[in-house]
Amino acid sequence: MPTVIVKMFEGRSLDQKRALVKKVTQAVSETINAKEEAIVVMIEELKKEDYASGGILAADK
Amino acid sequence: MPTVIVKMFEGRSLDQKRALVKKVTQAVSETINAKEEAIVVMIEELKKEDYASGGILAADK
Amino acid sequence: MPTVIVKMFEGRSLDQKRALVKKVTQAVSETINAKEEAIVVMIEELKKEDYASGGILAADK
Amino acid sequence: MPTVIVKMFEGRSLDQKRALVKKVTQAVSETINAKEEAIVVMIEELKKEDYASGGILAADK
Amino acid sequence: MPTVIVKMFEGRSLDQKRALVKKVTQAVSETINAKEEAIVVMIEELKKEDYASGGILAADK
Amino acid sequence: MPTVIVKMFEGRSLDQKRALVKKVTQAVSETINAKEEAIVVMIEELKKEDYASGGILAADK
Repeated sequence: MPTVIVKMFEGRSLDQKRALVKKVTQAVSETINAKEEAIVVMIEELKKEDYASGGILAADK
Repeated sequence: MPTVIVKMFEGRSLDQKRALVKKVTQAVSETINAKEEAIVVMIEELKKEDYASGGILAADK
Repeated sequence: MPTVIVKMFEGRSLDQKRALVKKVTQAVSETINAKEEAIVVMIEELKKEDYASGGILAADK
Repeated sequence: MPTVIVKMFEGRSLDQKRALVKKVTQAVSETINAKEEAIVVMIEELKKEDYASGGILAADK
Repeated sequence: MPTVIVKMFEGRSLDQKRALVKKVTQAVSETINAKEEAIVVMIEELKKEDYASGGILAADK
Repeated sequence: MPTVIVKMFEGRSLDQKRALVKKVTQAVSETINAKEEAIVVMIEELKKEDYASGGILAADK
């Protein structure tokens, strides 16, 4: 704890994920006073056909 | 917001997903007085080997 | 299954929740061919201080 | 209800999943007095590149 | 990891929660070969007005 | 999208939440090339009696 879940579209590179979890961990640590080693980040990737806003799939926009 | 997550078995067609997000968005908008364009729907698909009720995998039923 | 999670701001009445779960269940049933009795809806309410877009809390907008 | 979500690294066999959902269902049933047939378990598998602790991906450890 | 989320109706005692997390942790550890100290369990409590099956709130059943 | 969910113990101040969502939004924006205004952050607070590691509630540690 804290545990952070990032839902984003698929397609990011391993380097982008590496940077994402590092920076998000630092951001959480600095602002809510949690040790970095206690912070967990999970990434959940979605396809464009599995996300909609306004009733329309991202795949159709 | 509102944000709706639909967990369902994999295997639905793109047309079914298209109809699903449209109708769910309308249902939420009408009943809790939210603008359609502010409503997000995410679909998460599960395999039959990743879902159980009564302690038994759907894949074994 | 399917299982639907609706995340929304707190403050809706019991009648709104009643209508919400009924209409969402119908919307899911009609569009992906699932029996109504198998559909589960869970509501998760958030405070305005627990939701942000663009880096700004809803409580501050 | 209750509904249990197990997030774990990918790679477990079907037999391990079968045992997991059975034992977890029993554990929940015994301790909080819920009927086994009402208990749902969902498994969500993560890749090692989608999980980090201490700001470092499991894939890099 | 693994991380287990248990969604259940509110109202269980602290002793029930204590037993729940202990037994669930053991069940996960034994069946998927994970160390107990690496297993996390989170409990999320729902009100009966925030859960529906078949389009009807648990509060109305 | 992206949508970030931060699960943490209850008790942080409004100022800490304000800083948290701002910094996390910047961290996501910079590393995966997403516009800040498209990024959503939701905070979910847990009690110490609703979180366990190693089978022991945080409330008992």
